[in-house]
Amino acid sequence: MKTVTEAEVLALIKENRSFVLTAHVSPDGDSLGSLLALYEFLTSQGKQVTIVLDDILPPVYRILPHWEAIRSVDEVGRINADLLIILDASTADRIGRVGEIVHAPTLNIDHHVSNRGFTDHRWLDADAAATGELIYRLIEKAKASLTKEMAINLYTAIATDCGFFRYANTKPATMRIGAELLAHGAEPNVIAEALETVSMNTMRLTVRALQTMAFFAEGKIAIITVTKDMLANDESTDELITYPRKIEGVDVAVMLKQRDDSSVKVSMRSRTVDVSQVALQFGGGGHARAAGCSIEGSIEEAREKLLAVILPKVGE
Amino acid sequence: MKTVTEAEVLALIKENRSFVLTAHVSPDGDSLGSLLALYEFLTSQGKQVTIVLDDILPPVYRILPHWEAIRSVDEVGRINADLLIILDASTADRIGRVGEIVHAPTLNIDHHVSNRGFTDHRWLDADAAATGELIYRLIEKAKASLTKEMAINLYTAIATDCGFFRYANTKPATMRIGAELLAHGAEPNVIAEALETVSMNTMRLTVRALQTMAFFAEGKIAIITVTKDMLANDESTDELITYPRKIEGVDVAVMLKQRDDSSVKVSMRSRTVDVSQVALQFGGGGHARAAGCSIEGSIEEAREKLLAVILPKVGE
Repeated sequence: MKTVTEAEVLALIKENRSFVLTAHVSPDGDSLGSLLALYEFLTSQGKQVTIVLDDILPPVYRILPHWEAIRSVDEVGRINADLLIILDASTADRIGRVGEIVHAPTLNIDHHVSNRGFTDHRWLDADAAATGELIYRLIEKAKASLTKEMAINLYTAIATDCGFFRYANTKPATMRIGAELLAHGAEPNVIAEALETVSMNTMRLTVRALQTMAFFAEGKIAIITVTKDMLANDESTDELITYPRKIEGVDVAVMLKQRDDSSVKVSMRSRTVDVSQVALQFGGGGHARAAGCSIEGSIEEAREKLLAVILPKVGE
Repeated sequence: MKTVTEAEVLALIKENRSFVLTAHVSPDGDSLGSLLALYEFLTSQGKQVTIVLDDILPPVYRILPHWEAIRSVDEVGRINADLLIILDASTADRIGRVGEIVHAPTLNIDHHVSNRGFTDHRWLDADAAATGELIYRLIEKAKASLTKEMAINLYTAIATDCGFFRYANTKPATMRIGAELLAHGAEPNVIAEALETVSMNTMRLTVRALQTMAFFAEGKIAIITVTKDMLANDESTDELITYPRKIEGVDVAVMLKQRDDSSVKVSMRSRTVDVSQVALQFGGGGHARAAGCSIEGSIEEAREKLLAVILPKVGE
């Protein structure tokens, strides 16, 4: 694997003609916005570009210009290209079957500190809040024109990964790029409204899950529980942990999500307790303020085992 | 009333010695952050400064540097000063009793397009997303040093009024200022976490209110109801309308909040319907996408009356 700079990425683009672009499965705003902005940039340079993704595009992302250009693995079949550019993925398995169908040298553009270096070329900047920041810098360095469509895709990319400029990874450079994207026509309210839309089923699940909220250690621990009976359709549980987390006085917020009758998935967020240490005791991992693990047993057993570890840490 | 420029505001500051600063009742992040940043700036220029507010400081704002400097009307009593600076308020009654106790010429600094012009001097910029933007520009133009404490106060001010750079009022300039404030030490995650904290009572109310969610017109209208029995303490209902609003397919989101047995307060948000027209029919008002009114009668009667007006507008 060869580490490359921004300038070397532009050289790779210049000297090649046909490109396949891909990103990780379970696509999010950063991977999709980055893909579509890079797609437009390469197309504007007269390149032949195919986007292939081994996953379904969640409908909310149909606000992103050029989304119709995204092809599935089955649609594309086997394909040769001068360069396969892999965005926002830090390991080879994150792109699903795309690696099997594309025959091309590979370039990885990413911002994850956990990046494993699995391609021929890699441009990694772990200080960037989003891969979208890197694509912006590329377009700027190429002195290509930044269209309104690119601005929408890149604002979506960046806003997704820094939680609309609320997370700790938001740097001055992140916001300066955001300002430029607004100046080029991105509308933050339109993007925010689309990204925050939830399905009726997800809202119904949210209401049911919130009703399960239970407090321990004088309100320092809050637990919500999602049993498998509550999951009927395509509900998202991604945002549920944010509810117990924002309650005044809660240090450790927990979501218990039943996988099956003998296994429970645990997500934890905290204000002061190092929850990665809690997760480690059950074979999981993560960061001090956000971690997860799986615990064998019923919901009740998992809750007991978990509380036995967390209670001493909140001073009970 | 005399309209003044940024430079004239600086001249007024330079030629005077003692200042009283105030802002509107029901203080929010913009009024408080602006007050406290201006307080620090004036103090650093050797001025004598008193902050007085005719309301209580919500505890979440104790993350703002210098919050202890805020005095109540009763603490201050009657006071003379060279200049009373009124921030983020667009009418005289918005500052409560402060107008009665302070004897001084007045300067109003505000960004509300609805500003009535009620002071001796006024610096109004309705293009600014927040009053905090104006205070930032003042400090910058004065070439005063921007401290970390000022940066925290101003980031809080600006982020509050543009919904963390998600609302339509977010301009490129808003984000450029945000970038500078981060460069001077504001931590967006700390500020966001504090602003998003809710009390246990508010979370309990949220859970109960969400259980009342009802859909009409094939899911195009969603209504949540808060009866007076559900309001026992100091719960906030400010965020409740955001839940029905973000559901896929919902055009008009409504919150019905019972005032007493014969009056219901109505809040509406929409994606396409002009809800200000709905509000007008009941003697209320607002904007096309966010409006409110009061309807006489029980909760059930209010709901019937309201649906009779909204249903034809969503094509039923």
